[in-house]
Amino acid sequence: MLHFEDITVGSTQSFGRYEVTREEVTAFAAKYDPQCFHLDDEAAAATHFGRLSASGWHTCAMTMALMVANMKTHPQAGLGSPGVENLRWAKPVYPGDTLRVETEVLEKRRSASRPEMGLFRSRIRTLNQNDEVVLEMTSTGLIRVREAEAAPA
Amino acid sequence: MLHFEDITVGSTQSFGRYEVTREEVTAFAAKYDPQCFHLDDEAAAATHFGRLSASGWHTCAMTMALMVANMKTHPQAGLGSPGVENLRWAKPVYPGDTLRVETEVLEKRRSASRPEMGLFRSRIRTLNQNDEVVLEMTSTGLIRVREAEAAPA
Repeated sequence: MLHFEDITVGSTQSFGRYEVTREEVTAFAAKYDPQCFHLDDEAAAATHFGRLSASGWHTCAMTMALMVANMKTHPQAGLGSPGVENLRWAKPVYPGDTLRVETEVLEKRRSASRPEMGLFRSRIRTLNQNDEVVLEMTSTGLIRVREAEAAPA
Repeated sequence: MLHFEDITVGSTQSFGRYEVTREEVTAFAAKYDPQCFHLDDEAAAATHFGRLSASGWHTCAMTMALMVANMKTHPQAGLGSPGVENLRWAKPVYPGDTLRVETEVLEKRRSASRPEMGLFRSRIRTLNQNDEVVLEMTSTGLIRVREAEAAPA
């Protein structure tokens, strides 16, 4: 089980394969983002999206699904996230796309207020089958410290 | 139909009512964010969340649902979003919570590359039934310009 001490700044990972289906795109949009360009082919064709595309929040959710699946094979003592910076939906995600994720750890530090936790910032990129970045963000993750009594590094 | 010309910097809106159910929290988490503290009561109780809480991406999705519902009563010629800044999950969202949204327009400008579009930045806050902010972000929205031939303001 990976803890704060095991996080290496500069380390990278590349993983995942998520097949984006039309059925899932329209189901997510119908519930959470029922704008016409996520639901209707003709309406989407009349916008800069060109054709029916996934809600940006659906892309975030699919990215998270890939990240959690990756954590199952590389278990870590994660404790959620306080937030993300500079979330950019760089390109539309279309039904038929296949998504994957690349991450890089940018920095890490012990929590000042909760000595049992550390924080690490990562650049997260989601790419499609043409290696185009569709989503980019800088995420902060919380993770358990293995030896909480040790002096903060 | 609201267009770019109708967006007023400094204008605020307060709207929505979303009842967060346990069933929806665990269904979203099972599909997109199957970390134990979003799925299992005992595991959640052992973390700083205290009890089962919604995925942060689910909170984003519920916030979007409230925003799109509000657009239905105040139709606007929206064209999606290139991204958000400083997305902060300020507090956990729990089953049984009721969410609402407050927005404020911070600035607006015509697109340099696409004269038929304008951009506006908004502060978006999602609050629970105790008026606690659970989610905060600064979002950029794209919207059609009514008179694209007019000189940019």
